[in-house]
Amino acid sequence: MTDDPAQTFLREYAAAVLERDLPRFVELYAEDVQVFDSWDRWEYAGRDAWAGMIASWFDGIRDTRVRVIAKDVQTWIGADVAGGSATLEFAALDEHGQPQRSIENRQTVLLQRRQGRWLAVHQHTSVPVDFQSKQVVAR
Amino acid sequence: MTDDPAQTFLREYAAAVLERDLPRFVELYAEDVQVFDSWDRWEYAGRDAWAGMIASWFDGIRDTRVRVIAKDVQTWIGADVAGGSATLEFAALDEHGQPQRSIENRQTVLLQRRQGRWLAVHQHTSVPVDFQSKQVVAR
Repeated sequence: MTDDPAQTFLREYAAAVLERDLPRFVELYAEDVQVFDSWDRWEYAGRDAWAGMIASWFDGIRDTRVRVIAKDVQTWIGADVAGGSATLEFAALDEHGQPQRSIENRQTVLLQRRQGRWLAVHQHTSVPVDFQSKQVVAR
Repeated sequence: MTDDPAQTFLREYAAAVLERDLPRFVELYAEDVQVFDSWDRWEYAGRDAWAGMIASWFDGIRDTRVRVIAKDVQTWIGADVAGGSATLEFAALDEHGQPQRSIENRQTVLLQRRQGRWLAVHQHTSVPVDFQSKQVVAR
């Protein structure tokens, strides 16, 4: 166990996704969180907008459990602001809990301590793109 | 003027790019900085790797001045760790200083105070991608 708030965030994030537990997921974020996500939209402004996206995602994977593994985690911890980065592997599990297809993202999270609780105030997830072809680059 | 280290980073970043001043650019970063860039590669590990990429870029735009404007800046400032986010517009300037083509990125920067100096320890820049087509999404 660790008191590192960025490690704690990653662990809770993975647990909430595996359980498709929207309230558990949402409570990781500050009300005014800003999210730069990998897909489809430039920005999600505020927890409600972000929760709406996650609710759609959990609904879309209704019959599939998704395992998140954080690799190459780095964290930078201050007294009241902290950050973390990782490569996140999202793997769909079959009925035996075995990983099938998977996808990887780069993730950065910024956390702030507010009234004694660490909350994500900014999250940035992406995949790099080939500058010439504008195609996604694999790791 | 401001003492906000994330605002200072963005201002110095833009000034160094406009002047294609590699030493000025590089000194914004910690030796062990990790960069998730928008293009071509998953990660740059360390300032030397990142400086090599920037040197190639400055060399490639030898005859073009590039103006960086940071829009929608948000910052989260702690005593020893700080973060910032912005949409960066990179515009090529013609010989009269007028912007021609431009491109936008989302940028997150994490800074840490070391021996009294704020240095970028992590930078994440990206564009979102359409999940179905895997094409870049404009703002």
